[in-house]
Amino acid sequence: MSQISPTHPRKLEDIDEWHLETDVAIVGFGGAGGCAAIEAADQGADVTIFEVAAASGGSTALSSAEIYMGGGGGTRVQRACGYEDSTEDLFNYLMLAQGDLADEERIRLYSEGSLDHFNWIVGLGVPYKDSEYKNKAIVALTDDCLLYTGNEKAWPFRDVAKPCPRGHNLEVEGDNGGPMFMETVTRQVESRGVRIEYNARVLTLIADEHGEILGLVVRIDGEQRHVRARKGVLLATGGFSMNREMWRHYSPKVANRAIPIGNPFDDGGGIRMGQGAGGSLLHMNQSFVTIPYYPPASHTFGILINAQGQRFINEDVYHARIAANNIQQLQTGNAVYLIIGERHWEQPNMLGGEIATAGDKIEEIAEEIDLPVDNLTHTFNHYNENAARGEDPLFHKQAEWLEPIEPTIAAVNITPGQHGLYVGFTLGGLETRPTGEVLTMDGDVVPGLYAAGRATCGLPRRAEGYGSGMSVGDVTFFGRKAGGQVAHRKTG
Amino acid sequence: MSQISPTHPRKLEDIDEWHLETDVAIVGFGGAGGCAAIEAADQGADVTIFEVAAASGGSTALSSAEIYMGGGGGTRVQRACGYEDSTEDLFNYLMLAQGDLADEERIRLYSEGSLDHFNWIVGLGVPYKDSEYKNKAIVALTDDCLLYTGNEKAWPFRDVAKPCPRGHNLEVEGDNGGPMFMETVTRQVESRGVRIEYNARVLTLIADEHGEILGLVVRIDGEQRHVRARKGVLLATGGFSMNREMWRHYSPKVANRAIPIGNPFDDGGGIRMGQGAGGSLLHMNQSFVTIPYYPPASHTFGILINAQGQRFINEDVYHARIAANNIQQLQTGNAVYLIIGERHWEQPNMLGGEIATAGDKIEEIAEEIDLPVDNLTHTFNHYNENAARGEDPLFHKQAEWLEPIEPTIAAVNITPGQHGLYVGFTLGGLETRPTGEVLTMDGDVVPGLYAAGRATCGLPRRAEGYGSGMSVGDVTFFGRKAGGQVAHRKTG
Repeated sequence: MSQISPTHPRKLEDIDEWHLETDVAIVGFGGAGGCAAIEAADQGADVTIFEVAAASGGSTALSSAEIYMGGGGGTRVQRACGYEDSTEDLFNYLMLAQGDLADEERIRLYSEGSLDHFNWIVGLGVPYKDSEYKNKAIVALTDDCLLYTGNEKAWPFRDVAKPCPRGHNLEVEGDNGGPMFMETVTRQVESRGVRIEYNARVLTLIADEHGEILGLVVRIDGEQRHVRARKGVLLATGGFSMNREMWRHYSPKVANRAIPIGNPFDDGGGIRMGQGAGGSLLHMNQSFVTIPYYPPASHTFGILINAQGQRFINEDVYHARIAANNIQQLQTGNAVYLIIGERHWEQPNMLGGEIATAGDKIEEIAEEIDLPVDNLTHTFNHYNENAARGEDPLFHKQAEWLEPIEPTIAAVNITPGQHGLYVGFTLGGLETRPTGEVLTMDGDVVPGLYAAGRATCGLPRRAEGYGSGMSVGDVTFFGRKAGGQVAHRKTG
Repeated sequence: MSQISPTHPRKLEDIDEWHLETDVAIVGFGGAGGCAAIEAADQGADVTIFEVAAASGGSTALSSAEIYMGGGGGTRVQRACGYEDSTEDLFNYLMLAQGDLADEERIRLYSEGSLDHFNWIVGLGVPYKDSEYKNKAIVALTDDCLLYTGNEKAWPFRDVAKPCPRGHNLEVEGDNGGPMFMETVTRQVESRGVRIEYNARVLTLIADEHGEILGLVVRIDGEQRHVRARKGVLLATGGFSMNREMWRHYSPKVANRAIPIGNPFDDGGGIRMGQGAGGSLLHMNQSFVTIPYYPPASHTFGILINAQGQRFINEDVYHARIAANNIQQLQTGNAVYLIIGERHWEQPNMLGGEIATAGDKIEEIAEEIDLPVDNLTHTFNHYNENAARGEDPLFHKQAEWLEPIEPTIAAVNITPGQHGLYVGFTLGGLETRPTGEVLTMDGDVVPGLYAAGRATCGLPRRAEGYGSGMSVGDVTFFGRKAGGQVAHRKTG
């Protein structure tokens, strides 16, 4: 056996001995792997985690670890802040957010189990303050907990579900939720006697002649070790945005214009192993993409303009919905600008755009940036006239963000691929049951193989409906499901 | 062996005897399979085709068999009609048409080999008249040959490549090119002594322990037969739009709103077999979709309007580019209308839309169809004022389609999913080298497995850049490549 092809399992007959045996082998110790390990251990399984890095954390530790939760009358924090969230509102919101890509079964499970998930996380020792962060923000930089993190108050979402804040931030100052969350999860994993192998690069799965996954090959201290996983292997290896070639191959529209975010091991290795073992891949073209155009929230008073000098979105939506639509505009032109009154323009900011021009008259601005003068002038005046009445008849932006744009007027160039800070990560991956079993294209289970987190195509499936906290919500919730499922697997 | 899972090969060790042996086993006798068979036979291989239907044809026979060809100074027909087409123009056009999804290697091969491909097809006995069909149409209903079938003359395509008509229609009256093309191909296949098994449903591939494809299992006359393919199996089984569940699963945005076109055996079976054998799938979310809004060409004088009462595309583009953009509009509203002067509106037509309202004043139209009155009025007047000067500063529609829209004004509702005839088929599939070898996710070849046509992700990869003739161009050109490649495979 000279070379191991990562996408195809090694054959059982080529394995001479097992160096290590365990019930459940989890690959990856981020949010998904950690929560899966806790749940599997609590169900009585003997669990081993293999983490390629020198420490736990994964991309969850690099995030804010904000989690999108609610329903069932509201989490403790929601209720303390005066919000009574319903499961149906949560469900309806998530269904519209995912649109054509919605997985109803997954969304139903998540909505109905969200309150319990909150309590479980609190039970781990994750601290949430009973307070609300009232600014429009990506993440609370105070130790406050609750904030609106998606499109809840924006059209058309507010028409299908009563708006409610569902982003839960940890009680910690600054954007430090991720490290704290993963420290807590790690402590809980350790306390359960889970074996953890760091600096352990899983090279390939091991399958028998029927395709059943029996274990894996891992490199530890330069040695290849054969691990027998009696109940199954659970891939929690993250997405593939750090594998630029792979990202561009499957999701070029975003990958060609965005900087990947995540940890360096989001290289798609687990997705490839799962596919090689017979797993089906779903929505590999889908990526989260965003341009953090707030904070400051005041940028929401601006309007976004394409090459035709037209608006194309209500500017009060979540920043990823904006970024996805900005990219879409490139089809019929090569310009996306934020037009904003200078009193609402703040620097420094994370937008990454630069003021292309500023002036007192929209006609002059239009000429400077080479957009159709009469059409941009119409757009601008039409917006201003309606905004003065608190109305946006075209895109239904909320009244709180409607004010006529007054001189000095600035045009900020955020044309994707040219200006502006666009960042993203992948949302496509292995196709699984909500309970984690990896599926073939026939809808059959690959026996012994489970997956969770961004190695899978999970609950959040498109930037247009993303909200902060949806990915960590997905990886922790469905990580637990998968961990519980593999622990109960009957074998032999 | 009770059941055969179509996505996983049967093991060689379970095969007790070979009922039939051949060098090359081709699955599917449409355009791709037929051209592959001719080429493989011409390279000296012993070839067998297995076709599930009772006759050859596939979806190519149901199409117009229009083929997109040019470059190299022009085909015989292009030159006879006064067009001097360059390879670089063809290449640049195709690259822009495919945008982010462009496969440069495939497009380069196609552009450089297109002229030879035309001559090869003529050599088969396919008749093309040295004449041009000058109307804006999907297909020539006369026996004329050459017509513009894509976005060549439309912005922004005309800015990167000198416009040239490249759609080649067969010399036959009416839309009867497909049957004639496939009759010719079938005659050529038969004349080469290729064995053809009709009513032959291929059930699964056969692989050895290393994953090499050695043959297939086919059901003929109710019996399972084991076929040994000494050089390889070539999947030419078509796409998957006729498998509604599969289409909706991978490509819901189109599948939820369009009627599938193709033959009933476009069920994805070959794609699933290839994936189960280790093949990678690419761009499974991509579908061709169209609304045949011309002919009559006069509809091009209208403007397309979304829920904001804004235009969003130059209306002189190919109908698939329009359809894809119509669907995109649904994100911020639930309305797409064609606004057109009644003198340009002709019935019957294939648009499938109905006149929602008609009148003398755009303001009244806007109220009737519940669109923002002032914005639609601006759009309409702005368009008309510029059209009177032969200009379209927003979307650069060609001057020949620019006339002020005069009363009586009609609003035709073509909101996707509600009104209008939207049809489509799949463009994603097995990932292959341009020479047909099926690839794993690692970029390795699956030994012995080849594919061509809509079972693969070929040259045309998105509706936004599609042009009539690109799919039959792709399946015949790369079908030949694959047939030649497998015939030359060194084995043993």
